[in-house]
Amino acid sequence: MAKQILVDMDGVLADVYVQFQKFEKLHRGSEISESELRGLPEQQAFPNGYHHLNTEGFFRDAPVMAGSIEGLKKLNEQHKVYIVSSAVEYPSCLIDKVHWLAEHFPFIHWTQIILCGDKKAIQGDVMIDDHPKNLNHFQGTRIMFTQSHNLDHTNDSFHRVSNWEEILELLL
Amino acid sequence: MAKQILVDMDGVLADVYVQFQKFEKLHRGSEISESELRGLPEQQAFPNGYHHLNTEGFFRDAPVMAGSIEGLKKLNEQHKVYIVSSAVEYPSCLIDKVHWLAEHFPFIHWTQIILCGDKKAIQGDVMIDDHPKNLNHFQGTRIMFTQSHNLDHTNDSFHRVSNWEEILELLL
Repeated sequence: MAKQILVDMDGVLADVYVQFQKFEKLHRGSEISESELRGLPEQQAFPNGYHHLNTEGFFRDAPVMAGSIEGLKKLNEQHKVYIVSSAVEYPSCLIDKVHWLAEHFPFIHWTQIILCGDKKAIQGDVMIDDHPKNLNHFQGTRIMFTQSHNLDHTNDSFHRVSNWEEILELLL
Repeated sequence: MAKQILVDMDGVLADVYVQFQKFEKLHRGSEISESELRGLPEQQAFPNGYHHLNTEGFFRDAPVMAGSIEGLKKLNEQHKVYIVSSAVEYPSCLIDKVHWLAEHFPFIHWTQIILCGDKKAIQGDVMIDDHPKNLNHFQGTRIMFTQSHNLDHTNDSFHRVSNWEEILELLL
C-alpha cells in the first residue's frame, strides 16, 4: 500500500556539508576536513553556517547526494512523497530550494514541496531525516540518514541508513 | 484546551484581491471593480493573476486584512497557530511572504510558518481558509473566510465567517 513519505532535503537529497566546506574555503579561507566534523553538531562544525545559509545562492548549486535522484524517483512511483525542508529560518534559501528541486528532481511536482519552520505539523507514515530533532516527535516510521553530526546518536526506534540504496531496501 | 489552528495567508491575513486590482491597474491599465468580482473564481476574476503572483514584490506590500493583527495575536496567545500558505507554485513570493509576516505579525515565530504546495499533509484541529479546495480534504473544524470568489459556495460542514471578529467568537 502506498505510504506518505516525508523526505528531508539538506543532508538527504542535497549535500550541504560539501557546500558548507566550499563556502568556508571561499569566504573564510579555512579548510575543514571530514575527519574534523565527526560527531560534531552542525553549528559547532560550521560556526559560520548560519551566515552561509543566509547567503543568496548558497543552496542553488549544492551537490546532489549520491543515488538520491534514482532512489527518490522509485519511491515517488510507488508512494506519496513530500519533500519537507526546515527552510523558513533562512528566507534567502527558499527560492533556491524550489529551483534546485525543479532542476535535479523534475518528477517532483510543486504540490509535493513543503518549506516549513519546524516539522511537527506535517503528517506522514515515514520520515527520512538526518536530524534527530525532527525525527524525535514523529509518530510514524523514523529513518535516520547518516551524517557526520549524527554518527554518535543512538535511538533504537530509528532505522539508520547510510545511503539511498538502504532506503529503497527498507521501503520498496 | 489549546488547539492547533492552521491559518491561511492570502485572503485571510493579506488582502491579495486589493493587490491584484492594484497590479491590474498599474501593469495592464485595467480597472476591476468589486462588483465585477462577485462569485468569480480567482483565475477568472484576474486572468493575469498568475503573472502578478510570479512578479517579485507582488506580495511584499499587500495590505493586511482588517482586524487580523489583533485577532491572530489573541489566537496565538491561547492556541498553537501555524500560518499555512500554498506559496510554492509562485517561488518569487516565498521570501516576500516571510518578510511580510515578520513586519506585520512579529509575534509569529518562523517555526510557525509553513509554505507548501497543497495543504493535505498539514495536520491541525482547525483550518481557516478562503478556498474550499483547501478546506474540502481537511478532517478538523473548517472555517471558510468570505471572499468574493466563495460567496456562492455552500457547504454545511463549513463555518462561514466574514471578518476576524467572527473567527474570535468561534475560537476564543
